Amino acid sequence: MAVGLAALARGLIDPVGLVTARPLFEGLPLPAPSDFVIGGHEIRLGSFRESAEEFARASGVFDPSWLDACRDELAAASARVRTGTVCGAGPAIARLGNRSDLIEGDSAAPVIDRIESDLRQFAEAERLDHVVVLNVASTEPPSAVPPVAETWDDLSRALAADQPLALPASSLYAIAAVRAGCSHVNFTPSLGATLPALDELAAQTGSVLAGKDGKTGETLMKTVLAPMFAGRNLEVMSWVGHNIFGNRDAVVLDDPANKASKVTTKDRVVSGILGYKPSTIVTIEHVPDMGDWKTAWDHIHFRGFLGCKMSLQFTWQGCDSLLAAPLAIDLARLVDLARQRGESGLQKHLACFFKSPEGVDEHDFFRQSRWLEEYAQKARA
Amino acid sequence: MAVGLAALARGLIDPVGLVTARPLFEGLPLPAPSDFVIGGHEIRLGSFRESAEEFARASGVFDPSWLDACRDELAAASARVRTGTVCGAGPAIARLGNRSDLIEGDSAAPVIDRIESDLRQFAEAERLDHVVVLNVASTEPPSAVPPVAETWDDLSRALAADQPLALPASSLYAIAAVRAGCSHVNFTPSLGATLPALDELAAQTGSVLAGKDGKTGETLMKTVLAPMFAGRNLEVMSWVGHNIFGNRDAVVLDDPANKASKVTTKDRVVSGILGYKPSTIVTIEHVPDMGDWKTAWDHIHFRGFLGCKMSLQFTWQGCDSLLAAPLAIDLARLVDLARQRGESGLQKHLACFFKSPEGVDEHDFFRQSRWLEEYAQKARA
Amino acid sequence: MAVGLAALARGLIDPVGLVTARPLFEGLPLPAPSDFVIGGHEIRLGSFRESAEEFARASGVFDPSWLDACRDELAAASARVRTGTVCGAGPAIARLGNRSDLIEGDSAAPVIDRIESDLRQFAEAERLDHVVVLNVASTEPPSAVPPVAETWDDLSRALAADQPLALPASSLYAIAAVRAGCSHVNFTPSLGATLPALDELAAQTGSVLAGKDGKTGETLMKTVLAPMFAGRNLEVMSWVGHNIFGNRDAVVLDDPANKASKVTTKDRVVSGILGYKPSTIVTIEHVPDMGDWKTAWDHIHFRGFLGCKMSLQFTWQGCDSLLAAPLAIDLARLVDLARQRGESGLQKHLACFFKSPEGVDEHDFFRQSRWLEEYAQKARA
Amino acid sequence: MAVGLAALARGLIDPVGLVTARPLFEGLPLPAPSDFVIGGHEIRLGSFRESAEEFARASGVFDPSWLDACRDELAAASARVRTGTVCGAGPAIARLGNRSDLIEGDSAAPVIDRIESDLRQFAEAERLDHVVVLNVASTEPPSAVPPVAETWDDLSRALAADQPLALPASSLYAIAAVRAGCSHVNFTPSLGATLPALDELAAQTGSVLAGKDGKTGETLMKTVLAPMFAGRNLEVMSWVGHNIFGNRDAVVLDDPANKASKVTTKDRVVSGILGYKPSTIVTIEHVPDMGDWKTAWDHIHFRGFLGCKMSLQFTWQGCDSLLAAPLAIDLARLVDLARQRGESGLQKHLACFFKSPEGVDEHDFFRQSRWLEEYAQKARA
Repeated sequence: MAVGLAALARGLIDPVGLVTARPLFEGLPLPAPSDFVIGGHEIRLGSFRESAEEFARASGVFDPSWLDACRDELAAASARVRTGTVCGAGPAIARLGNRSDLIEGDSAAPVIDRIESDLRQFAEAERLDHVVVLNVASTEPPSAVPPVAETWDDLSRALAADQPLALPASSLYAIAAVRAGCSHVNFTPSLGATLPALDELAAQTGSVLAGKDGKTGETLMKTVLAPMFAGRNLEVMSWVGHNIFGNRDAVVLDDPANKASKVTTKDRVVSGILGYKPSTIVTIEHVPDMGDWKTAWDHIHFRGFLGCKMSLQFTWQGCDSLLAAPLAIDLARLVDLARQRGESGLQKHLACFFKSPEGVDEHDFFRQSRWLEEYAQKARA
Repeated sequence: MAVGLAALARGLIDPVGLVTARPLFEGLPLPAPSDFVIGGHEIRLGSFRESAEEFARASGVFDPSWLDACRDELAAASARVRTGTVCGAGPAIARLGNRSDLIEGDSAAPVIDRIESDLRQFAEAERLDHVVVLNVASTEPPSAVPPVAETWDDLSRALAADQPLALPASSLYAIAAVRAGCSHVNFTPSLGATLPALDELAAQTGSVLAGKDGKTGETLMKTVLAPMFAGRNLEVMSWVGHNIFGNRDAVVLDDPANKASKVTTKDRVVSGILGYKPSTIVTIEHVPDMGDWKTAWDHIHFRGFLGCKMSLQFTWQGCDSLLAAPLAIDLARLVDLARQRGESGLQKHLACFFKSPEGVDEHDFFRQSRWLEEYAQKARA
Repeated sequence: MAVGLAALARGLIDPVGLVTARPLFEGLPLPAPSDFVIGGHEIRLGSFRESAEEFARASGVFDPSWLDACRDELAAASARVRTGTVCGAGPAIARLGNRSDLIEGDSAAPVIDRIESDLRQFAEAERLDHVVVLNVASTEPPSAVPPVAETWDDLSRALAADQPLALPASSLYAIAAVRAGCSHVNFTPSLGATLPALDELAAQTGSVLAGKDGKTGETLMKTVLAPMFAGRNLEVMSWVGHNIFGNRDAVVLDDPANKASKVTTKDRVVSGILGYKPSTIVTIEHVPDMGDWKTAWDHIHFRGFLGCKMSLQFTWQGCDSLLAAPLAIDLARLVDLARQRGESGLQKHLACFFKSPEGVDEHDFFRQSRWLEEYAQKARA
Repeated sequence: MAVGLAALARGLIDPVGLVTARPLFEGLPLPAPSDFVIGGHEIRLGSFRESAEEFARASGVFDPSWLDACRDELAAASARVRTGTVCGAGPAIARLGNRSDLIEGDSAAPVIDRIESDLRQFAEAERLDHVVVLNVASTEPPSAVPPVAETWDDLSRALAADQPLALPASSLYAIAAVRAGCSHVNFTPSLGATLPALDELAAQTGSVLAGKDGKTGETLMKTVLAPMFAGRNLEVMSWVGHNIFGNRDAVVLDDPANKASKVTTKDRVVSGILGYKPSTIVTIEHVPDMGDWKTAWDHIHFRGFLGCKMSLQFTWQGCDSLLAAPLAIDLARLVDLARQRGESGLQKHLACFFKSPEGVDEHDFFRQSRWLEEYAQKARA
């Protein structure tokens, strides 16, 4: 994302892969690439430059000259990064945290306070109109919404009383963000802002919310192909999907607890679209030499006229980070557009970006996309 | 189609693969499977039963017991078949014609007269409300619309004068059909009813028209996947599609002239959806041992964020006839519905059934499907 | 196997798929299809005819007329089947046992005695020169060789003393077979005859031994492709193989204990050939609608000159039983040939038939095949 | 090749992909990477450095820092390159020739003389023991052996008389090479040294000959998999192979005449191994965006026991140049070894490197590889 925004701002690359660069969005007051000021919370040592170099080396997808050209932007962005927290993130993520001053606390309240304070300082220091907190951290193990997070009243009371709260790191960040009036986008399957209390609070603070779990590759394909089978009344008997990749996300997903979150969101889209449950298998495995190249093989076995069994297979070979980055930029731009239009809370028209669109049961990519198109047309009117 | 309608009428099979069996169409006055009376024109010897047995043996997709169960319906349908014509169908098709009494003529007029007379006799003998002429013949070589077919006035005058006309067999049938007040569905890429003169005439005779070239497999996939790339602003650099199959259609398509018609309709959908022209290759080859199993391998090479080149491959393994048959039944049912509703001429809402929807530039399967859904909803209202 | 032998004997089919029908074996005194008398032990109810019909129906690969033609042979073979045992076979297999009179015993000795007696009676009743016991039962959970089975002296003493022995069903059958002087082929990864004590005993009784785990599909491909990478000095970084199928084997392999046996033999061939250990993943999953169609997707990621990462993927779509059956017949024929030649014990030249060839470290299919060719040439000399 | 030899000599890369780096060849007096002196004939403008940069940019497979590290070697090699000829190479290749001083002549003799003189000067200037002329030029249209080239007597007489000769450029180079006592390796399907006259001459001049058409990817796979089907007596009904790529070779192969040469050598290996002719389709198409990434999809349809039809598909994604380069180096090393051992003429033990091994009917990769292994073992003895 950092390299891409800088390269776009410098005109080194064209905006291919950015949904918001489609003609549909022309004329809308979306922030330009150069309008963005990147900051963040991080638990690992290292700079954006180093990460980008490692990525270029391992996956071979990068013109390394761009890193030199964007040297200043990357250095400035790295300088704005603050140390984050692994509280409630689970052991697989905690093992990655090698900064010495990770935010810690015996309870949720002081951690949230510290993050909120970081966010407010960032906005002030950079004189920002709008901060969008984007969760692109590793996937946490599954978490249920604790009863205390059902209403903001209860949750704020518990925080004030410094009660121990069973909230994952992703939700601590989300609470801090919404309390600070920032918008929040959850690009992961982690719990994040999926708390009724935060829906309530967002209405008060004007935070725009979107999530969750960016739909980048195999699941995108599922939500594109399942409507075809439904449209033709072909019966999907089984849908088997195997994913392999080798980046840091893969390392974390090698932990069965973390993997469970991912597989769940990847699995349910098909039956959501078809209206019945075929046999499904979803695996996602860490194969180190694959680097960022997420490769998925899907085998769809379906029954047609006269009961004839037929099949469709696909292999998707996508660079995971470069599929995700432009969508994350799109979301930041569209969340900002919503804010400019005075909207707050969950944005149903952003469903097409997510594996588990919040507040929406629709998984059909094209029905979701229609909402986005109608929104853009309305916004241009 | 014949086996399927009989098996449906007898309750031997469920209606999987029939679009019109979706809940969307519930309550509409569509003809039931047992309402259909099958006839036809044929240039080859042999019965429906023999064709179905050959198909079952070569492709192994059939419960042979159904042929016994539906023995009477198949025999009755075969008895209604009349000998057709190969006039203007090109040499590859003419070679297949082995009936001794093929309709022949030095000019178009007597051939059309004979077909029209056959159609009128069929309707009368079977006391039919509505005859739908469905072109499921082999693909002809490409034909241009002759100037004389631009208006019905000119065309009818030329026919009356028994002028020689450069019209393919598919158009001779289509003229006969519309003149007899039958509806006409062109499931092939042949010229058929694509004559302005027939649009005019259909408005007078009340014929419903639909075409052309049924969208059953690889091209369906193209019109499903291309919108995904467009929606995500991923640049398709090349789209390569190779098709192999071994049925009688394949034998005819082995002739380069006939193949040209097919490749053209398969090829242009992608650029029609994307709005630009990637490199494309489309082949369709006869591999006898494949029988009816149309297998397509497509390789889509696309460019994403930061110019990263990624790819998607799919392999479609479908039984060609069993993908086409239910769609042909759907079209007959929907054309009949249109007729009941007093509509005539080209039906834009049937675009999702065709590779080259007549009168419509839209190839996106989901936009096309929306038209069908809206039509069904309106019809139910 | 039963249908195949009968159909071969009747000349209904050609011997495609039979290794021993290659010109290489012409002139050798291999038993003809009509020489075989099929018997067996079974734990489930049902006849060969019923199983074949179920198989034909679920997987659509059978000309059902053959079942009528071979009605007598199938009925006769079913009549020779005796009830088997599930002692030591593990719960997943025990659940399948629905015959009322399963062989049971508090210890191994009486079970073995009963099986041995069955085998002797079968040979006598049918006046057979040679009985080949072929293990084509479901895969058992992994078993280690118990110390008592290291020598025949110890094992025979323990059996005589009716000591409790931790032996799986497959080994009980194997002991009975070798004690009765029958030959034994283990087509599964179960322990079977892999007991040093039986190697010893076979030398005395003249039993020919071969095993284990028939190499039919994905693993065959591995032992064919890995030598190519080795020959070209291309470094295999990872080899990922996913298998799906839906027959009864798949039901048993759905039990993690049973699956462990299978995955182990499937996994180690690659490193055995390459001489180093790439990252590997092997899954094998039960997908009921696939029936007997074992479908495997393998992704091989390899490094070439200048460190360039390349890949090979394959999809294998094979009918599991029809890949296994001819190899099982081949093994019976070749084991009989060895017996005729006065050989006993493990047959190294049969390695190319097995995923885990006993007594041999060679997994390269072509080196293994050379042994078979050299053996055949020697036998013809 | 130039980058690889320099990088190997500098220890920047390991010798993965080099067959001659296998343990099998340890201890043999093969020339080291630093022993090679690269020269050549070229018809296009540009340097090795520029070609390598273009290649790295278009196909993204190169660590560009190696080009800086090997700057001197690349510059020196480029300085040794002389201008070649397009005489008899056909129009597709002639179009690529943009050097101003291409070798021309009204007849073959002066062109051959000039090339021979270049080769002798190169050997003398660089004080070389042995020059290996390696044809890695673009594929020419098919050429038959002219009668005059059946014996060296006739051919030398015709050259002396300056008769017009219908010989392609590849043969002009080959004649010059053998006459100059150089060895000759034909890595292409062009005619090259496939002239009986040159076999004769090589015996006199001591030239070592090897060819033709390097077996790098899809054809390698064919010669690996076909023996598996033969070994298992599975009947290959059809083998369909589609190749796409985008490098300069692809541009030349877009010309149907040039493509014909390639398709022929790719096609016949399968029937050569199986002993019968299945249906085959081979295409090779230019898709510019693929760059050097040769991607092949093969569909193999085969018949197994009881006539069951099954299939195997594979997708090979290889970087064409980086598959070819190490084999070309291997061949130069092994040809030099043969020369050291006093051998001359065609080398049967190099068959495993070629799609159309000269003087050999064996296409089975593993039988071919055994010859190489036996040769290496003999050479070490």
